[in-house]
Amino acid sequence: MEDTAAAVETPVTVSTFGVSRHPDTARLVLSSPKPPGVREEFVGVVRKAFRPRASGGGGAGRTPPARWGWALTALQTVFPVLQWGRTYNFKLFRSDVMAGLTLASLGIPQSIGYANLAKLDPQYGLYTSVVPPLIYAVMGTSREIAIGPVAVVSLLLSSMVSKIVDPAVDPVTYRALVFTVTFLAGVFQVSFGLFRLGFLVDFLSHAAIVGFMAGAAIVIGLQQLKGLLGLSHFTNSTDVVSVIKAVCSALRDPWHPGNFLIGCSFLIFILATRFIGRRYKKLFWLSAISPLLSVILSTAAVYATRADKHGVKIIQRVHAGLNPSSASQLRLSGPYTVDCAKTAIICAVIALTEAIAVGRSFASIRGYKLDGNKEMIAMGCSNVAGSLSSCYVATGSFSRTAVNFSAGARSTVSNIVMSITVFIALELLMKSLYYTPIAVLASIILSALPGLIDIKEALSIWKVDKMDFLTCLGAFVGVLFGSVEIGLAVSLAISFAKIIIQSIRPQVEVLGRLQGTNIFCSIRQYPVACRIPSVLTIRIDTSFLCFINSTFIKERIIEWIREEVETSDEKARERVQSVVLDMSNVVNIDTSGISALEEIHKELASLSIQMAIAGPGWQAIQKMKLAGVVDQVGGDWIFLTVGEAVEACVTMQKGTALEC
Amino acid sequence: MEDTAAAVETPVTVSTFGVSRHPDTARLVLSSPKPPGVREEFVGVVRKAFRPRASGGGGAGRTPPARWGWALTALQTVFPVLQWGRTYNFKLFRSDVMAGLTLASLGIPQSIGYANLAKLDPQYGLYTSVVPPLIYAVMGTSREIAIGPVAVVSLLLSSMVSKIVDPAVDPVTYRALVFTVTFLAGVFQVSFGLFRLGFLVDFLSHAAIVGFMAGAAIVIGLQQLKGLLGLSHFTNSTDVVSVIKAVCSALRDPWHPGNFLIGCSFLIFILATRFIGRRYKKLFWLSAISPLLSVILSTAAVYATRADKHGVKIIQRVHAGLNPSSASQLRLSGPYTVDCAKTAIICAVIALTEAIAVGRSFASIRGYKLDGNKEMIAMGCSNVAGSLSSCYVATGSFSRTAVNFSAGARSTVSNIVMSITVFIALELLMKSLYYTPIAVLASIILSALPGLIDIKEALSIWKVDKMDFLTCLGAFVGVLFGSVEIGLAVSLAISFAKIIIQSIRPQVEVLGRLQGTNIFCSIRQYPVACRIPSVLTIRIDTSFLCFINSTFIKERIIEWIREEVETSDEKARERVQSVVLDMSNVVNIDTSGISALEEIHKELASLSIQMAIAGPGWQAIQKMKLAGVVDQVGGDWIFLTVGEAVEACVTMQKGTALEC
Repeated sequence: MEDTAAAVETPVTVSTFGVSRHPDTARLVLSSPKPPGVREEFVGVVRKAFRPRASGGGGAGRTPPARWGWALTALQTVFPVLQWGRTYNFKLFRSDVMAGLTLASLGIPQSIGYANLAKLDPQYGLYTSVVPPLIYAVMGTSREIAIGPVAVVSLLLSSMVSKIVDPAVDPVTYRALVFTVTFLAGVFQVSFGLFRLGFLVDFLSHAAIVGFMAGAAIVIGLQQLKGLLGLSHFTNSTDVVSVIKAVCSALRDPWHPGNFLIGCSFLIFILATRFIGRRYKKLFWLSAISPLLSVILSTAAVYATRADKHGVKIIQRVHAGLNPSSASQLRLSGPYTVDCAKTAIICAVIALTEAIAVGRSFASIRGYKLDGNKEMIAMGCSNVAGSLSSCYVATGSFSRTAVNFSAGARSTVSNIVMSITVFIALELLMKSLYYTPIAVLASIILSALPGLIDIKEALSIWKVDKMDFLTCLGAFVGVLFGSVEIGLAVSLAISFAKIIIQSIRPQVEVLGRLQGTNIFCSIRQYPVACRIPSVLTIRIDTSFLCFINSTFIKERIIEWIREEVETSDEKARERVQSVVLDMSNVVNIDTSGISALEEIHKELASLSIQMAIAGPGWQAIQKMKLAGVVDQVGGDWIFLTVGEAVEACVTMQKGTALEC
Repeated sequence: MEDTAAAVETPVTVSTFGVSRHPDTARLVLSSPKPPGVREEFVGVVRKAFRPRASGGGGAGRTPPARWGWALTALQTVFPVLQWGRTYNFKLFRSDVMAGLTLASLGIPQSIGYANLAKLDPQYGLYTSVVPPLIYAVMGTSREIAIGPVAVVSLLLSSMVSKIVDPAVDPVTYRALVFTVTFLAGVFQVSFGLFRLGFLVDFLSHAAIVGFMAGAAIVIGLQQLKGLLGLSHFTNSTDVVSVIKAVCSALRDPWHPGNFLIGCSFLIFILATRFIGRRYKKLFWLSAISPLLSVILSTAAVYATRADKHGVKIIQRVHAGLNPSSASQLRLSGPYTVDCAKTAIICAVIALTEAIAVGRSFASIRGYKLDGNKEMIAMGCSNVAGSLSSCYVATGSFSRTAVNFSAGARSTVSNIVMSITVFIALELLMKSLYYTPIAVLASIILSALPGLIDIKEALSIWKVDKMDFLTCLGAFVGVLFGSVEIGLAVSLAISFAKIIIQSIRPQVEVLGRLQGTNIFCSIRQYPVACRIPSVLTIRIDTSFLCFINSTFIKERIIEWIREEVETSDEKARERVQSVVLDMSNVVNIDTSGISALEEIHKELASLSIQMAIAGPGWQAIQKMKLAGVVDQVGGDWIFLTVGEAVEACVTMQKGTALEC
């Protein structure tokens, strides 16, 4: 960074575009300064990571008062609310209150449904909509995101924790483990933020997320068959095959079509209101409150008809009152801790991936930038606080954030309003949920799923990049037919295999010159480029010439040279007399790469062909100097550009020809 | 390959070095032909892999007779002996016989020692020196390599198979599993060769091998303490801590210094002869036969003094006679098969790594080239045949190959001579081994170990590449304090982490122009390069702009642009008006990389800065076209070289300035 800064200060104006060869360029390659070593690089990364940044909020705190300035800046860094709170006014507040109320009307039924998906009692979903949004509101940097339980994380939790303890057998331990996972996930998230490990979220590529979300949506949809069909027995597995088997075997017993009727009709109702909301932008609030409306209508209908006596499954008792403390339930030692930690790290990454994807997309619409590391800390603190107050893992929800944004949220205050509304509902309205049919919860969850399946994006990935589509497909199939973890593992494996394959088999290109210029480019990519007779110019297209590709590159180059020598034996005048290796793409090299270069040089020497190297990267030339390759090749045969190298080779050949 | 060939046929002579800008270069980037897709690439790789190659033997069989030509070529490909056998003569045969006899005199005692290390009876080491060398002799392409049991593979087998079945408890099953592992290792090696998976051997980098071998040598040396001290009880673990504990606890009981005396004196004798052999090249045979001499002398001494009655441990009964069949002992189904397959794949890779490293280094001295895939098939067939005739995993030995080479071996006939000599020894001399002290076997193994520890190479790795040294150290420490598998896993993990880290955090460099030229280079690497005012030129130094680094690169670039804009606010004349992204290093891109480019473009547009892209790679520009990035940036703003891009930006700015 310092070098760049120095360069910024002293820009030298170059007014003419002279292209005569500078006399000193040949020496430049070898006289370049030493690149930063591993230690300097590391120190630089750490220092840069922990340097407090001017946040994107608009430069407040830039000239802090001398005495308390430091403390204020630190506080503002941890609690961005102190920064934007200063300019907050009544007009913004009014927007936020409206948005918060809309959010709550969608959030309450969704939270109950997601708690059901997470195999917890309904109130735990509501608890999760109270505490985490409050914490996030004072620590987070996104203005539109809506925090609370989400479908994918609920599924992940229930499918992974069910494998440790069956919730049907021991619901108390199951719940305790869910809180433990939430606590650990929060701790992981905070540490990702503190240690600037934000790049971990990038490990799940966009393509993998598209496939993963689509697979998860279908799996969640299938799980809703239990509620929709009013089944009592169901499988704990999430894969398609087990679920379909379970449904088939359950349907052999008598079942009550009442559940299915209720579920389907309200699903159609919700989807219809959404369609209307999309068509007429002003009626979007209809789609936002339709889930709540469905709950009220269906509850009233069941209460009026006493349909629960005729097989319609209802929620029954819901605990009223604010979140109880769950600190004493955490199992931070004992037999389940390792399993909990494994689950927690997956939940932490998935939750962050979703939150940051949601946050970034809305921040980019509004034109501000999220601080990924700060987001992680805020999200982690929300979950740690949540785990102590009977919440499970919360994160940013796709569907609710969109509603929040459309309803005009201007800051995280809408989350606070939502949280207070849910709190009031918890205190006052829980008893009225007694007759709410479970099928209507299923229809609310089902209605949120289409947003997770992005067929258009998948098609565009297929069009642009087949390998990326494979990642996407791997995640999708893995989630669908294996489990959530298998889907993640498959997509990660394909993604990293892609990078490794790219490193194992790099392109090695023969270069030619564009006629009338001194530009050298690949003759495969630019067929108009012409090869220089008697000079073979080869570009190594990898940024890291290392153990994994050095043998391949070496053998490829030697093979080409031998073919050239063999085919040109007849016409001796055009025999290859020099080989120019364009190493301008090679940023770094390791000891295996260096010995490959040595062997190429040895092979060329045995065929009495001159070798020249053009434009090696900074780290590469340094290591080549240290390893003595530069001395072997000869300092005079290392050039800055291919053009210079080819020119030198041609000059030498003319010299030899004259001598003969 | 076809493209290259076409280019070779039609080289256009370019005699002048004109550098005036070619009018069409700007259009070239977008009009380049479609690069080969994933399918074409794959088909090309497969076709190339299975295309029969002209072997390095000197072009025999180039013009085969029409009718039997095909069959002969195929046979010659499988059995290179048919090729070089034609020109084999008596003079070469005499050299090979001398080399073979020398080899046998070293091989017999080493084989017995290594069998001891592999926890097998002595004759199994000798069996392994009979069958595999014969098979290799007709199928292999290396002329100097000496095939048989080696130290590292013996250690690997004993340490891994001991974990499945304890040889002290059930020697019959242990032996059966060793044969099974040998069979499977052979099958793996053959399939590596058939499916052209030779690159798997490259996964173990040179640095990892240096560390691994040094660690293995120390571990093997420590295992010899059992024989050297004449201990009866010893540990099955191979790590330093367990071995030292075992030795300490054993030394508390009374022990017989006779073993130690015999071992040390013969170790000194062998090392002294080696020193003499190095000093006086003509006496090198002394070092080759000194192990055999030690066996004879020590056996005679023990027989004469009956020292075995006073605590000196002796070999006792050795089975005489040729290799018995072991086909019926293979356990290809049953509870141990999976464990055997795991052990086999590690043994197969390690054995191949050692053989190919040995083969390549001597081939390079003699100036011919090994065919890695053919070597794998030959080695695999040797092991499959060996596993059916009571042999364990054989490979090329470092120490014996060096002796074979020094003794003047000219072809694999020396291996045949060695094999016959060992066979005769098995038939006639086994009874005389009854009184051979075990301590002398330990001293023979110990004397072979210094060759495995290459401190000079480790130092040179440290000097050139600190990360490579870390791989080396990881392998060393892993083998020493964990186990052979842990050492391998650690070194593999560090090696691949190196590649991934290189991909995660690529360099992003600001470019400047060398004064008086049109060459752009990094201002950090070449501080003389000057930045063009008002044009920020940034080079992305990764060959694959993908999910793992696109966010980092995007944020880095946007951060720089913002810094530039902020610092230059005062002096409006020098404000950055265009950004040129040099993508000449970017060979490939994925959908995440593409969206990073789109976001950079969006950010620049919001700051009303023009974006230009220079020289994207073949795959990259194709995907950018498909994804519509080219249309967003504008086809007019994509250039072949940075020079052209900067020129266009400057021209545009002058135009705007004039308009104002």
